[in-house]
Amino acid sequence: MPIGVFDSGVGGLTVMKEIISLLPEENVVYLGDTARVPYGIRSPEIVKRYSYESAQFLTSKSIKLLVVACNTSSSVSLELLKEKFSIPVVGVIEPGARAVAARTRLKRVAVIGTPATVRSGSYERAIRAVDSSIEVSAIACPLFVPLVEEGWLDGEVVTLIVEKYLSALKPLGIDTLVLGCTHYPLIKHVIADVTGVPLIDSAIETAKEVRDILSFNNMLRNGGKRPVKEFFVTDSPEMFADTGERFLCHKISNISKIELGG
Amino acid sequence: MPIGVFDSGVGGLTVMKEIISLLPEENVVYLGDTARVPYGIRSPEIVKRYSYESAQFLTSKSIKLLVVACNTSSSVSLELLKEKFSIPVVGVIEPGARAVAARTRLKRVAVIGTPATVRSGSYERAIRAVDSSIEVSAIACPLFVPLVEEGWLDGEVVTLIVEKYLSALKPLGIDTLVLGCTHYPLIKHVIADVTGVPLIDSAIETAKEVRDILSFNNMLRNGGKRPVKEFFVTDSPEMFADTGERFLCHKISNISKIELGG
Repeated sequence: MPIGVFDSGVGGLTVMKEIISLLPEENVVYLGDTARVPYGIRSPEIVKRYSYESAQFLTSKSIKLLVVACNTSSSVSLELLKEKFSIPVVGVIEPGARAVAARTRLKRVAVIGTPATVRSGSYERAIRAVDSSIEVSAIACPLFVPLVEEGWLDGEVVTLIVEKYLSALKPLGIDTLVLGCTHYPLIKHVIADVTGVPLIDSAIETAKEVRDILSFNNMLRNGGKRPVKEFFVTDSPEMFADTGERFLCHKISNISKIELGG
Repeated sequence: MPIGVFDSGVGGLTVMKEIISLLPEENVVYLGDTARVPYGIRSPEIVKRYSYESAQFLTSKSIKLLVVACNTSSSVSLELLKEKFSIPVVGVIEPGARAVAARTRLKRVAVIGTPATVRSGSYERAIRAVDSSIEVSAIACPLFVPLVEEGWLDGEVVTLIVEKYLSALKPLGIDTLVLGCTHYPLIKHVIADVTGVPLIDSAIETAKEVRDILSFNNMLRNGGKRPVKEFFVTDSPEMFADTGERFLCHKISNISKIELGG
């Protein structure tokens, strides 16, 4: 049985990439809801509805574990999905929150993400659930997603935009910064340069969590036939492959188009 | 009976603003499909489906004329909508195309728009239908929409991004540039500075077309009760009002949330 991974678009492929790298023997089914991307600018009600429909589709593919590879969706719909489905459901917030709590010495950290993720306060809650003495700042960076999708990952424009959003971090004296959006790893070199603090990449932490849960429950796949990767999208497969390959760092084939939500 | 105006989000409000300014006595019903914005990054099939659902909703409100106040939707779904509905349907492409054809002396013009609008070739076709000797260049500027939605309308970042997309225009020797997206009027001062050529604003041209059609068909509203403006959105009304007021240059109230497409 495969691992199911979903995101609003291509961003979750950074999480899938880390899962494949840690668990190369696993079958993985990925769903990108590209006809309704991005989720990060939408209200919690709409994000919940879209996330539920995406999760429902993936569970119909007999997955053994569901990864919500989208910070926005994890922020507002994880409880709902855990309630509705009986398989393990892993979001990207808690793994990142645990990693940052373990890492900070000054007990002052920050999170950057989409407007919806920041508005939800999900990282603050998750980090302070681990250690309530940690001070958490959060900054929404709405332009990072379109910038990364456009493929502008280096140069003057990116640096200026990163500075414009993140110069507010300087006076806060933080010692760790969480990349609270699956698109951000693609510009993490610029973010690290501008801020000068260590970064936590939720994608890597989430992959470790997936491995731990499958291992603990004795659900890891052990060899056999070559593992299968399968992709589903709600808009054009060609457009998904074009952008997605930058995120997965691998050729993408085996894509089918489906319809969600009528 | 009101004029119906639809767009994927807030962009069409720049068209509504020009309609109100030319035809202040008219009732107007506006629909922003904010739960699925933006259309400009999607495939033609998806844009057609969403546009049809939006138009269907507005015609259920007994409108006398439908304005497709979205360049992407006008580019790929205008024919479909004209076929499906019996009221006059006005897009934003043809009015802009006629204006640019009338204005150019060098017979070399350019259009800027979303990836979907540029891929469709709709402006090239519409301009060359008026005058086939005109050379038309088109450049997609995917970051302009998120930039304008973020409210960054001035300053270094905007200028740099505009330069990055539009420096390719310099060697082409064009004498007129069409703003082929309803978001672009908000940064037209920067676009004019960078390119140094006169701009055609499709919103203004479309409003004139609406006036001409209503006047020709004797369908203009003449005074009576104070005209009513009504707004419908598919995601949060509050979020729509917040961003939308910058586009309409007027306070927005009377907003209802509806569901489209299941």
